[in-house]
Amino acid sequence: MARFIGVEEIEALAVGAAVLGTGGGGDPYLGKIMAQEAIKEFGPVTLLDPSEVPADALVVPVAMMGAPTVFVEKIPNGDEALHSLRRLEDYLGKKAFAVMPMECGGLNSTIPFVVAARAGLPIVDADGMGRAFPELQMETFSVYGVSGTPMVITDERGNWTLLNTVDNAMMEYIARGVAVRMGGVGHIAEYPMTGDEMRRTSILQTVTLAIELGKAVLESSKKKVSPLIAMEEALIKSDYGKPIILFEAKITDVDRTTAEGFAKGTVNLEGINGSEGHEFRVDFQNENLIAYKGDQVLATVPDLITFIDLETFKPLTTETLRYGFRVACLAIPTPPIMRTEEALKVWGPKYFGYDLPFIPVEKLNEGMIVNGK
Amino acid sequence: MARFIGVEEIEALAVGAAVLGTGGGGDPYLGKIMAQEAIKEFGPVTLLDPSEVPADALVVPVAMMGAPTVFVEKIPNGDEALHSLRRLEDYLGKKAFAVMPMECGGLNSTIPFVVAARAGLPIVDADGMGRAFPELQMETFSVYGVSGTPMVITDERGNWTLLNTVDNAMMEYIARGVAVRMGGVGHIAEYPMTGDEMRRTSILQTVTLAIELGKAVLESSKKKVSPLIAMEEALIKSDYGKPIILFEAKITDVDRTTAEGFAKGTVNLEGINGSEGHEFRVDFQNENLIAYKGDQVLATVPDLITFIDLETFKPLTTETLRYGFRVACLAIPTPPIMRTEEALKVWGPKYFGYDLPFIPVEKLNEGMIVNGK
Repeated sequence: MARFIGVEEIEALAVGAAVLGTGGGGDPYLGKIMAQEAIKEFGPVTLLDPSEVPADALVVPVAMMGAPTVFVEKIPNGDEALHSLRRLEDYLGKKAFAVMPMECGGLNSTIPFVVAARAGLPIVDADGMGRAFPELQMETFSVYGVSGTPMVITDERGNWTLLNTVDNAMMEYIARGVAVRMGGVGHIAEYPMTGDEMRRTSILQTVTLAIELGKAVLESSKKKVSPLIAMEEALIKSDYGKPIILFEAKITDVDRTTAEGFAKGTVNLEGINGSEGHEFRVDFQNENLIAYKGDQVLATVPDLITFIDLETFKPLTTETLRYGFRVACLAIPTPPIMRTEEALKVWGPKYFGYDLPFIPVEKLNEGMIVNGK
Repeated sequence: MARFIGVEEIEALAVGAAVLGTGGGGDPYLGKIMAQEAIKEFGPVTLLDPSEVPADALVVPVAMMGAPTVFVEKIPNGDEALHSLRRLEDYLGKKAFAVMPMECGGLNSTIPFVVAARAGLPIVDADGMGRAFPELQMETFSVYGVSGTPMVITDERGNWTLLNTVDNAMMEYIARGVAVRMGGVGHIAEYPMTGDEMRRTSILQTVTLAIELGKAVLESSKKKVSPLIAMEEALIKSDYGKPIILFEAKITDVDRTTAEGFAKGTVNLEGINGSEGHEFRVDFQNENLIAYKGDQVLATVPDLITFIDLETFKPLTTETLRYGFRVACLAIPTPPIMRTEEALKVWGPKYFGYDLPFIPVEKLNEGMIVNGK
């Protein structure tokens, strides 16, 4: 079931990762270029099905942490995350069997391919968020009992830090402080785990899903048609639910602030294509969190909420949203492993400060007529 | 030349450390209690003359870093710095032959005794500041080429971090960020070095000096006489110069702010005991930095400037200074190793924002008649 991932699959992966990134996770563009360059230099990367990893083999998620805006200005050497992996291996006294993504949305969907290509290691087709989230303890690995530490964080100058913390919230807190003092970005290896732990705590086959979603979008975009049907085909084979177009609308206003290291704000929209006369709103904190029609809640985190540009049919990240854009607001039901009681404590609407219960998007929109008609 | 340090020597050491702390470095009280408790439980600590350390033996400075005010409220378990030492040994793959203080002023003069007693290790009679300073790169070890990292920082909950940085300023910067996120205080093992490096880069026999200064103060205090003569006897045997009483005066005002993590401010005084009619001023940033008589500079950092209470004849830390206190302002010429061009770049008046050259206090006050008479 293992297969090779080359330059073209990375192209699709970056687009699919923007869909699963729900507006955040960083623009996958630079990560895509880095992964493609590494593959050109070192050859294609083997993508392993989770079932192919031995029970006791060491699997290590690798990623970038910090502000994606800084990442673009302070371009990495490309070997920082690999350095973190090597130092973690030294500390554990064990070599990694494979690396994997910690999230399948945004920038961090492609960063592990840079490490894998350079190290000659395979990547496991799974991740710990099934989307993008802003913090390191927001991972299914953490929810289901894997320790995030020992972890290593390395910067582009060669500074590096090994962390051991009493819990994963403290790991996030200290690592964030280190990343800030490294200039806003650090490259990490964290949540070292066995093959069995990976299978028990991950969202499975999400790299494949992101590649298929990306292909769906790229083909639809070429044909200038909605990618919805093609996306649905990809999602049906996954642990995610059927996608729903919540509304189509025109952006009337984007209100953003940068607060406590996050891009926070609200997108206001007025309905088009059958939703005329209705006002919509999407709140975000790096990622899109809650979608409203007037005062009615249409979808909440951790279900995925993504804007699709109705000109290009491509997904839009939060920082690109502007007055006048015509968009479809797409919701994707998150996999069951993301919706358990213990999982919702970590990333339900309440964690983000909303006095709202989590109600699955397919329930909130039960019997809805697609596109408000 | 090795000798045992027991509970009584620690009593004197804490007082001498307040003299060498130049108003900062944290109140030695809690460190004294911790060291005395550890010695009661585990027995006296061997103090080694620097000449007794083998050339290749591993010597490790251990200390507390962060806000002394937090330290008092968040009382350590006592084994945090030892934990840092053990993790550093693990990383280096070598056992420490001895520990040593990173500074001989304030709290950190006694913390290494807690580690030494618990670990059954000797302490080297030397340090890296010859006084107290607020930052980790302000050490003779750093000035003369020892890398501060690998270093380990541990908190009282068991969180710990290993740092490797490209230079010692970056070590200070990242470690400070970690200490802040550990709640304001961390316990560190840093600047691992050989016996030869220690001899080349340290200020020698400063533990002995602090103990002798402390004994001089305690005895003078009992007799209610000036400790100056007895202090001079202790200093003559050391690398420091002869102490000078810059003035005696009454505090008229203390202006303090807490800015950028430091206690900054100015003490204003009016002369007494022969200095009547003169106004004096001492600027501080944790430690006393510059002493003035009117506009005339009397002493600057890194020479030591310490207030002695004329009621008790004991040294006063900055946070205890109040209106109405009658004090002597004591200056001690710092050792030559602290006054080289490369050293003054790190802790001369310019580093603290003063457009002043460093002129040795004994030159600034050449031919002065002690006490303004």
